[in-house]
Amino acid sequence: MSQPLTQACADYFLDLQDRIVARLEELDGEARFLHDDWQRDPLPDEAVALAQPGPILGGGGRTRVLEGGRVFDKAGVNYSHVRGWFSEEFARTMPGEGRFFEALGVSLVLHPVNPYVPTVHMNVRRLSRGDYGWFGGGADLTPNYLFEEDAEHFHGVLGDACDRHAPIGDYARMKAWCDDYFTLPHRGEMRGVGGVFFDYLDSHPDETFAFVRDIGDAFLPAYVPIVERRRDTTWGEREEQWQALRRGRYVEFNLVHDRGTTFGLKTGGRTESILMSLPRVASWRYAHAPEPGSPEAAMVAALQPRAWRRG
Amino acid sequence: MSQPLTQACADYFLDLQDRIVARLEELDGEARFLHDDWQRDPLPDEAVALAQPGPILGGGGRTRVLEGGRVFDKAGVNYSHVRGWFSEEFARTMPGEGRFFEALGVSLVLHPVNPYVPTVHMNVRRLSRGDYGWFGGGADLTPNYLFEEDAEHFHGVLGDACDRHAPIGDYARMKAWCDDYFTLPHRGEMRGVGGVFFDYLDSHPDETFAFVRDIGDAFLPAYVPIVERRRDTTWGEREEQWQALRRGRYVEFNLVHDRGTTFGLKTGGRTESILMSLPRVASWRYAHAPEPGSPEAAMVAALQPRAWRRG
Repeated sequence: MSQPLTQACADYFLDLQDRIVARLEELDGEARFLHDDWQRDPLPDEAVALAQPGPILGGGGRTRVLEGGRVFDKAGVNYSHVRGWFSEEFARTMPGEGRFFEALGVSLVLHPVNPYVPTVHMNVRRLSRGDYGWFGGGADLTPNYLFEEDAEHFHGVLGDACDRHAPIGDYARMKAWCDDYFTLPHRGEMRGVGGVFFDYLDSHPDETFAFVRDIGDAFLPAYVPIVERRRDTTWGEREEQWQALRRGRYVEFNLVHDRGTTFGLKTGGRTESILMSLPRVASWRYAHAPEPGSPEAAMVAALQPRAWRRG
Repeated sequence: MSQPLTQACADYFLDLQDRIVARLEELDGEARFLHDDWQRDPLPDEAVALAQPGPILGGGGRTRVLEGGRVFDKAGVNYSHVRGWFSEEFARTMPGEGRFFEALGVSLVLHPVNPYVPTVHMNVRRLSRGDYGWFGGGADLTPNYLFEEDAEHFHGVLGDACDRHAPIGDYARMKAWCDDYFTLPHRGEMRGVGGVFFDYLDSHPDETFAFVRDIGDAFLPAYVPIVERRRDTTWGEREEQWQALRRGRYVEFNLVHDRGTTFGLKTGGRTESILMSLPRVASWRYAHAPEPGSPEAAMVAALQPRAWRRG
């Protein structure tokens, strides 16, 4: 990986993490993020590493986690910069040559207390394998109750960020990619109302990095106004149970399908940092189906690809 | 698959399901299992099926689920008998030739209300692919609090069933197989105190079927006395939170590692019947670690391979 680009990415990602953490603490008004910085042992040299049966990982990270806040029930905003050797099995699933890789980025998942405030995910990252490097990332919104203006706002802010970087930023393609990626095939539904997703952006690194920075910067303006709009809605037992069931689906997606989670667990990543994306509480009931005509049924009906951007 | 053996398996599995459901209802004393019988559309012929991109599944099942009981919070005891065509991708991971398969069996997971009563899983099944057929199955115990006599009892009853069918029943091998299989590598711990596990038992079908029947029949005597011993233990908030955290680990195992779950979801199985194994409530906290010297810490320390059989 080109050293100056890697350094520029690290500088940007660390600053982005700080800015997001500061704004979320202000928004919560009460809880503070726990700071958990971690460092792995130095890497063995290549000959030793490739003789191991499993993956080898070095590097470190800055994990920021908040639990039991006023607005956020569980929130993780992580930075990590790792390098190491893929296992042979995992290497087959990735582009590029060789088994040495490097990955750095910011990844966040926020699970609010209030069932009317949507869960959100955002990730921006730089990866390389041998001489081949690329950017990936995205953001998607997972409400428990459908408010069309929230989905429109979220897609609007992300779409504008894409447009500023056309043709690298391609909202139509990245929105469709998100619809396709954040889907639970065994449920026949998306995990939320989507957003944007992109991966393997391997050309024009400077321009692509500018696009990725704009997506990172778009996160707070895409999400915070939705929190402010919904955080004072009152709720009861019914909404709380529905939220827990929807969080069960979130867990299903992350553990069965999410490549970031798989990548982390299969490359020997730090389990607690990877699984900070899971909610504090999730629930499963047999064959639960919302009452026809209810707000819960309207939410489920909206978990299909749909044009959310206005204007 | 040999028709007389398949029919004999179906007869045994259906009767086993009925007997287990009846005994568990008696044990619960209050709740009744919901009966949900299901049937898939007839299979298309081979040429049509193999032209499809995904798996094709036909057949049916008898799902039995209980929720909100006095003893059991969530319990599923399922019978299914399915046949169909593997996807090409999945076919590569299985023994035998061709893409036509058939599978029948009983699978159960019980999540009790009382945190002192362990969760349990049992499965007995017959599979075939083309002309190649085999038996698989097993049972494992997942307590939240360690009682050595419970683990010893569970292993003792299953071990005796194995001994009656030596050399097909091989407790030492099947106990080690279980330790190995029911493990969360990313956590460095087993999901419980183990039991027995076996797969690909492809020779001496009549003798192996007799062994499998004995394992199925051993389930109630292996588990029910443990329920009766622990069900009246009083508990509070602390035990309930610990139970929810341990159930989070159960979810991690089932969704990330369990081949039965993967097999079901990837062959186009019935999602609600497959995921009945998930608990009603599961919880995740960042880097939660039990207090040193506590009963919770003693439980975690015991989640490693250990000789549980006495005498």
